[in-house]
Amino acid sequence: MSSRKRFMLPEEEIPRQWYNIVADMPTKPLPPLDPKTHKPLKPEDLYPIFSKAVSQQELNETDAWIDIPEEVWNCYRNYRSTPLVRATELEKALGTPAHIYFKNESVSPVGSHKLNSALAQAYYCKSEGITNVTTETGAGQWGCALAYAAQTFGLEAAVYQVKISYNQKPYRRSIMQTFGAQVTPSPSMSTRAGKDILTRDPNNQGSLGTAISEAVELAVTTPNCRYTLGSVLNHVTLHQTIIGLEAEKQMAMAGEYPDVVIACFGGGSNFGGLSFPFMRHNILDGKKTRFVASEPASCPKLTHGVFQYDFGDVAGYTPLLPMFTLGHNFMPANIHAGGLRYHGAGTIVSQLLKDKMMEAVDVKQLESFEAGILFARTEGIVPAPESCHAIAATIREAKRCKEEGKAEVLLFNLSGHGLIDMSAYDQYLSGSLQNFEVSQEDVNRNIEQLEKII
Amino acid sequence: MSSRKRFMLPEEEIPRQWYNIVADMPTKPLPPLDPKTHKPLKPEDLYPIFSKAVSQQELNETDAWIDIPEEVWNCYRNYRSTPLVRATELEKALGTPAHIYFKNESVSPVGSHKLNSALAQAYYCKSEGITNVTTETGAGQWGCALAYAAQTFGLEAAVYQVKISYNQKPYRRSIMQTFGAQVTPSPSMSTRAGKDILTRDPNNQGSLGTAISEAVELAVTTPNCRYTLGSVLNHVTLHQTIIGLEAEKQMAMAGEYPDVVIACFGGGSNFGGLSFPFMRHNILDGKKTRFVASEPASCPKLTHGVFQYDFGDVAGYTPLLPMFTLGHNFMPANIHAGGLRYHGAGTIVSQLLKDKMMEAVDVKQLESFEAGILFARTEGIVPAPESCHAIAATIREAKRCKEEGKAEVLLFNLSGHGLIDMSAYDQYLSGSLQNFEVSQEDVNRNIEQLEKII
Repeated sequence: MSSRKRFMLPEEEIPRQWYNIVADMPTKPLPPLDPKTHKPLKPEDLYPIFSKAVSQQELNETDAWIDIPEEVWNCYRNYRSTPLVRATELEKALGTPAHIYFKNESVSPVGSHKLNSALAQAYYCKSEGITNVTTETGAGQWGCALAYAAQTFGLEAAVYQVKISYNQKPYRRSIMQTFGAQVTPSPSMSTRAGKDILTRDPNNQGSLGTAISEAVELAVTTPNCRYTLGSVLNHVTLHQTIIGLEAEKQMAMAGEYPDVVIACFGGGSNFGGLSFPFMRHNILDGKKTRFVASEPASCPKLTHGVFQYDFGDVAGYTPLLPMFTLGHNFMPANIHAGGLRYHGAGTIVSQLLKDKMMEAVDVKQLESFEAGILFARTEGIVPAPESCHAIAATIREAKRCKEEGKAEVLLFNLSGHGLIDMSAYDQYLSGSLQNFEVSQEDVNRNIEQLEKII
Repeated sequence: MSSRKRFMLPEEEIPRQWYNIVADMPTKPLPPLDPKTHKPLKPEDLYPIFSKAVSQQELNETDAWIDIPEEVWNCYRNYRSTPLVRATELEKALGTPAHIYFKNESVSPVGSHKLNSALAQAYYCKSEGITNVTTETGAGQWGCALAYAAQTFGLEAAVYQVKISYNQKPYRRSIMQTFGAQVTPSPSMSTRAGKDILTRDPNNQGSLGTAISEAVELAVTTPNCRYTLGSVLNHVTLHQTIIGLEAEKQMAMAGEYPDVVIACFGGGSNFGGLSFPFMRHNILDGKKTRFVASEPASCPKLTHGVFQYDFGDVAGYTPLLPMFTLGHNFMPANIHAGGLRYHGAGTIVSQLLKDKMMEAVDVKQLESFEAGILFARTEGIVPAPESCHAIAATIREAKRCKEEGKAEVLLFNLSGHGLIDMSAYDQYLSGSLQNFEVSQEDVNRNIEQLEKII
């Protein structure tokens, strides 16, 4: 074990390939289905929505390693490797024998891991002659990343931002605009999907599900335009595996290997991005690392959801995905971790959870911020509200290690910083922040309301 | 010249000493004077205000190298080295043959270079048995750094924040509170100095000069409490030389040496921190690097100020410093670059400017944000309004290189990111941002109003 605090890779060690865990999975995920015919999708079916390259990546079950295009790698090296850091001060504060490491994705230019996939998706669109991209964003982390990536590759970007976040976090809107993107709060009157939602519910505050519907609709009704997505789908997680592949090399620099890998969970891309490169050693090399996804108690699809085919969006525009879901009509409470307010889990993670190759825990809002404050006061970085969920789950594991007297190695993903979420910290510090919780009965009731899809 | 984009030092290459340029200066700065006796200060005279260690550093004219305490270095390695980056995309956008590099201090946990001195000052206080620290802050970058550093070393921190910034930038207040500091807008009714200012001018929006008066007063009237400062003084600049010392090694990794070194200028610590390690090669090794300080046209002490003894604060609590000054009563316009709203320049920089060992330019607010937007859209990082001034000056140099057909090497300091200053970008993008300018006549009139100090 090294006594170093912070581990960086030299530029030539930045990975040149992404890792596609589907190729190595003992049980492949069920296929996504065409929402009309209920037949398994072929890549061509996705071409009207996504770039061809990511459509093929989405359904690739055979290639474990996908080359990172030179143009994307040249962007990665502007901010990668991100640091792997030993959280020695947090360890001391907890009095735990555990060794806590975190991968610090907050140092990316847009403050989160989201850029890793945004650059790839924008590059592929550009290389296929696309001129315009659309997307959804919750807290705005993904929207900022996509806006920057579009700017980088000379594309026009239109972003639908979840209305509650648009109003709660105006700074992220400004960042997107600074990068030249057009930003619309969702639901809006600019799409059929948005109008339908607002007609039914004029005060609808939006969710990632509503924003996806609007962005997809704009993409398929605009010439030479494609949709891009910040999480959930396989190709997004694929691009995020750069996180775990770097972390693997950096853990080796530290002379350690993780016993537990932890990440917050919205759609699954930051969780999968960190976890899958390590999980391949569980699959192929008999390692016994545990993988823990930490989700908000107010949006608990992994711990309380149902595994079934469901839509990825509120309007039902997307393919049908086999997922742990709370129902695509589920409207999460207005927690500050906007990036975790999504009703479903990606298909890979859903299969892995079903196969008990990973675990999930749910964390209430107050516990998440309590963890975030402790982290800020020990490690000096104010974490994003989403990342606070990973920290809370890590602290639970570190306390368990203390009780059990075990010096386990814990690794979590600091997916982003919270410098644009300070109003949430204000509320926590002033005692006005609330917990929200969804019970199993709530979930069951919501699922029953859904029309039987398949 | 390397084709790499980004240069990082391995942990063992992080410098172990700071560089004290005073030891190598051909003409030493004039001494600071006791405000009552007008006699040159001895370190002991500063002990009631500062820690003993920094009091000695402040007046050290003989030692070129000062050891960085192990405890401080252990904090540095949590976020250092910061990257040196080749701004290839900015170069392309400008069509310049210049090679533009920037040192990216924005990746520090608090988003700016300020932590480099905050950690040192807090450590020295702690090691001398001090329990409480006070300070001033403008935009909040320094206050956040000091709040974090105080937390790190177990000190209580009280921060006076310039009132206009306290109201314009509430997120930075939240960050300070998240790190456990007490924050008061200045001028306030909590000190004699604040009461005097508010009695004369109830709507006074504050300046660094007012906040310094209040913080110094609190320090000298509170048991076991010392004052800490974010810029201007020699010891602060000394601690910031870690920036330039790293940059020197990183430029060597890139196979280049700067022809021009550029930084924004408030009190001088980020400018001196980057410049002085390179300037020593001008002094000792016959290098011909130019050093350009970029200040706001609304607070132009270097380009329009007068060189004379003046106070560092509005109330006249500080020692008398030989400085380029606009007069300690000068009230700068409410530009968004709050960290540059200071009436005077540090004594070292003032002497260097007098001796023509460096240059200064002034930049209007709109030009600074135009430069910041171009930087954001090319290099992907939203710069702090302060740093926008360095970028604007760099762009001027890059355009000159284009006109002259010279492939000069330009190096500037990206002292911080602007993610908490997005309201300023909003105003710029919506066309509502204004220029402010101070003429030589304005400055002369203000200086004449001052009582003759010495």
